[in-house]
Amino acid sequence: MEEAEVKKYTEISKLGEFGLIKHLTEKIELLQPSTLKGVGDDAAVITPPANGEVMLLSTDMMAEGIHFELTYTPLRHLGYKAIAVNVSDICAMNGEPTQVVVSIAVSNQYSVESLDEIYKGIRFACKEYKADLVGGDTTSSRSGLVIDVTILGKTPKEKVVYRSGAKPGDLLCVSGDLGAAYAGLLLLEKARRTLGADPAEKPELQGYGYVLQKQLMPRARVDIIEMLRNSDVVPTSMIDISDGLSSEVHHICEASKVGCLLEEVKVPIHEETIKVAQENGATPSLFALSGGEDYELLFTISPADYQKIKEPTMVNIIGEILPAEDGIMIAAKDGKMHPLAVQGWDGLKAK
Amino acid sequence: MEEAEVKKYTEISKLGEFGLIKHLTEKIELLQPSTLKGVGDDAAVITPPANGEVMLLSTDMMAEGIHFELTYTPLRHLGYKAIAVNVSDICAMNGEPTQVVVSIAVSNQYSVESLDEIYKGIRFACKEYKADLVGGDTTSSRSGLVIDVTILGKTPKEKVVYRSGAKPGDLLCVSGDLGAAYAGLLLLEKARRTLGADPAEKPELQGYGYVLQKQLMPRARVDIIEMLRNSDVVPTSMIDISDGLSSEVHHICEASKVGCLLEEVKVPIHEETIKVAQENGATPSLFALSGGEDYELLFTISPADYQKIKEPTMVNIIGEILPAEDGIMIAAKDGKMHPLAVQGWDGLKAK
Repeated sequence: MEEAEVKKYTEISKLGEFGLIKHLTEKIELLQPSTLKGVGDDAAVITPPANGEVMLLSTDMMAEGIHFELTYTPLRHLGYKAIAVNVSDICAMNGEPTQVVVSIAVSNQYSVESLDEIYKGIRFACKEYKADLVGGDTTSSRSGLVIDVTILGKTPKEKVVYRSGAKPGDLLCVSGDLGAAYAGLLLLEKARRTLGADPAEKPELQGYGYVLQKQLMPRARVDIIEMLRNSDVVPTSMIDISDGLSSEVHHICEASKVGCLLEEVKVPIHEETIKVAQENGATPSLFALSGGEDYELLFTISPADYQKIKEPTMVNIIGEILPAEDGIMIAAKDGKMHPLAVQGWDGLKAK
Repeated sequence: MEEAEVKKYTEISKLGEFGLIKHLTEKIELLQPSTLKGVGDDAAVITPPANGEVMLLSTDMMAEGIHFELTYTPLRHLGYKAIAVNVSDICAMNGEPTQVVVSIAVSNQYSVESLDEIYKGIRFACKEYKADLVGGDTTSSRSGLVIDVTILGKTPKEKVVYRSGAKPGDLLCVSGDLGAAYAGLLLLEKARRTLGADPAEKPELQGYGYVLQKQLMPRARVDIIEMLRNSDVVPTSMIDISDGLSSEVHHICEASKVGCLLEEVKVPIHEETIKVAQENGATPSLFALSGGEDYELLFTISPADYQKIKEPTMVNIIGEILPAEDGIMIAAKDGKMHPLAVQGWDGLKAK
């Protein structure tokens, strides 16, 4: 019986490199008129954006055991997330994605069907974000799964937003809510340990759909970029939240050479996140300030521009930009002011 | 004594992700006027090429134990090669490189100094090929070293060369000589086994500088692209030789829907390659036809265009394109014709 089930899976080595690439890329749909040639030659060929636009280029790598655990990460979600976190970088420059290339290093022990699952997630994300998958590399690896995505995007030259443009008096804003991805990670890690220790004990994941989704399948906030554009508002600075709010606030303040006052009470936190934090004896704010992988957008806008925002419910004002000499501060819930500590998620830092 | 030596090395975890990125990228020189913003924000910002030009985008991943062995690959050479093989893909489209992004997954056990060595090779190659390093990602990995490079290039729209444009009557041409990288690999693999078995026995690498260089530090043939441009010649099809000549000839013939007659006697082979093949009981042609990683250019040109080539010594004519019905053939040294077998290097295929 078990043998029969195993036979459904095709070994990667059966197809070889060229066969595998053909198999994985034959279902690709191209949506961008600028894609002249996608997969199938030594390089993709792309029409440059119109005069007055600039190109944006970014890359993000995800490694098994560091950025994800295969024990609880569905491969399809993993493929989706690899694209979404790159789209998020393009959003953080106030741009829109156009093309991606994907490189995957995978053990020869993997089945073609498991790579298919990863590619299903990749294709789903590419369609959602209108980013054409135009190339890639699939290689065997002696070790874990590594997915590297490089993304190309574009935006009108005068609308590029750097981390460095925040000015004293600007409002500090964030999209969505924070800390949910970390709450989801905590639940999944707990479930993994529980399953390992006692197979009879069921992990409690029901009722936590929101935080699990934020961890496993975060969405890039292309809707915020579109809304800002429709409102004719260009943020003065922007960054996406991959390492935790406090870390990103520091990045913006350091790049812009300004200070800031973050109001803890205004940081938006989802009720499921609050529940997970409390169940684990932590304050929800800790999740929101230091939990990574939210992929929400942190940005600053001038007060005059705030009036122009057409959907103000999509934007949470959480603080104000100050002169550099005022420091990078947080007004805590107890009313006291402290310097904002950086406790971002840092994959390379010794724990 | 040993402890004192170990102390020269800095653990990656000491710097953390941001510190490491800063350390690795602070020495980067930018040479392309189109690079508006390199490393340091969520994405690089690049001015698109001029009207009438197209962009080229390609990616290549190298994994430890599959594409390289750290026992005999100097890290600096590895960094160089990771860039060069990507530049080679841009050359194969008849383009010039402009920007690269580099992602590296590395064990936390690595020292900062070893990453510095990789980056020295990367910076050296970027300078040589005038490709700006504008971004990247460095992540820890539970497993081996993985380097993924994505490259952006450009070329005038009417000068893009695909694999698919070869016509019957075209000359089949190749740059440089073939099989040398495989000969170098063979020597290095032998040396590794010898060292493992008997530390007293010295591997014989002296007098093999050419083939070792071709394996460890292959150069992308930007000089061929420049010479073709100066000669006002646009090949009808082109590919770079990464998997072996016979495999690439098949790629061109299949994409162009043509046949071909390859003349074995005309395939250029370096004297060191011949020596290594003979010492190992193999025919040199086997190395040239099936050895991978030469990174020479295989291209087809019309006979009329051949007259225009200003430096004909840089181009070896090794065959002719035929109608599809004539098949993909090789005229062997014994005067007999055979179908050209594909025995390319294929990292994922079962050996």
